[in-house]
Amino acid sequence: MSDALDRLIATIKSRAAAPDPSSYTSALLQAGPPRIAKKLGEEAVETIIAALGDDKAALAGETADLIYHLLVLLEARGVSFDEVRAILDQRHGTSGLVEKAARPHDPTSAP
Amino acid sequence: MSDALDRLIATIKSRAAAPDPSSYTSALLQAGPPRIAKKLGEEAVETIIAALGDDKAALAGETADLIYHLLVLLEARGVSFDEVRAILDQRHGTSGLVEKAARPHDPTSAP
Amino acid sequence: MSDALDRLIATIKSRAAAPDPSSYTSALLQAGPPRIAKKLGEEAVETIIAALGDDKAALAGETADLIYHLLVLLEARGVSFDEVRAILDQRHGTSGLVEKAARPHDPTSAP
Amino acid sequence: MSDALDRLIATIKSRAAAPDPSSYTSALLQAGPPRIAKKLGEEAVETIIAALGDDKAALAGETADLIYHLLVLLEARGVSFDEVRAILDQRHGTSGLVEKAARPHDPTSAP
Repeated sequence: MSDALDRLIATIKSRAAAPDPSSYTSALLQAGPPRIAKKLGEEAVETIIAALGDDKAALAGETADLIYHLLVLLEARGVSFDEVRAILDQRHGTSGLVEKAARPHDPTSAP
Repeated sequence: MSDALDRLIATIKSRAAAPDPSSYTSALLQAGPPRIAKKLGEEAVETIIAALGDDKAALAGETADLIYHLLVLLEARGVSFDEVRAILDQRHGTSGLVEKAARPHDPTSAP
Repeated sequence: MSDALDRLIATIKSRAAAPDPSSYTSALLQAGPPRIAKKLGEEAVETIIAALGDDKAALAGETADLIYHLLVLLEARGVSFDEVRAILDQRHGTSGLVEKAARPHDPTSAP
Repeated sequence: MSDALDRLIATIKSRAAAPDPSSYTSALLQAGPPRIAKKLGEEAVETIIAALGDDKAALAGETADLIYHLLVLLEARGVSFDEVRAILDQRHGTSGLVEKAARPHDPTSAP
């Protein structure tokens, strides 16, 4: 529980268990997955734009917003971040190229 | 160092320090921020689509891919994930609504 | 029928009516809305990245890809581009600010 | 000039030539490409989400917003929509698969 992400996940779970009318997290969870996914998309776009600029603090800030909305989305859909951690360990314990080569073929990719 | 994200960050940093021709991470870092940002955007879209479907395992998998590319992007731009953690602690130690109210006004938002 | 978009829409409709195994459009329509939406997202990201760079030809090319995938998505969901044109006329015949002010309030926006 | 897109392009160009303090288009053009690109990304996400739902009118509406912001972005970057039309004619006069096969190889794609 000493990690910032674990603290944030605990906060999000407490908002899900006991909605607080003054909490943005509670409002997002109440609005549901499509609305949270929309916010995630907006933060991803802002992260991309920040990554192409020169302001490193802006990139760190947008990344934080992206991760926050991602964690709220996982809570809304009942997916544990521990599952995500397990997948990261599984996929990136070996070379990423090896992992990517093992992915199923996308039939709509360029032939 | 016992967390999956820290292990992944360490792996990415080792690929940055010693590029490996067989590593996808090395290839991404070599390609540069615009290419990594493009991949981040693709994974964000896949995460959004998975979040609106019924396959929780797919959502966990897309989330893992999104976080991986996000961490590679931070490395490529010289931003430490510790900065992101610090921002998360700072912003979400109190109510998100309070935090959001403190953000600068967006002049192109609806009046 | 003298406009490039109308010609493209006619081509997409003909691929929907008579699938062609060698046609990328037919493959997209066969793959369905989630796959087409994913491609749309990718092209949007590429358009954003091109817009922040210096290569105007790249921006024109990415915009063309974005519009193409958008038109395929509309076909896959049974939405006519004429409806889109009607909305554009309706919304932008007057000041955009007037139109935006009339939109419903987003409860998850900053207070 | 009888097409909705041409009318909209003319309106956007008139806002660029003579900024109007009450115009959302003028405000966007004044804010510049990164802000317009952000809005484009938001509309793309909303279009994707609408495409995965059941509300066709919502999809038509989000598509209209996406196209509007795309046209404003082109104006802000000095790219003519006629160039986009020419590319669409060039790429989609023949099979899309043929066109896609001719694209340059992406070195960060799966091997």
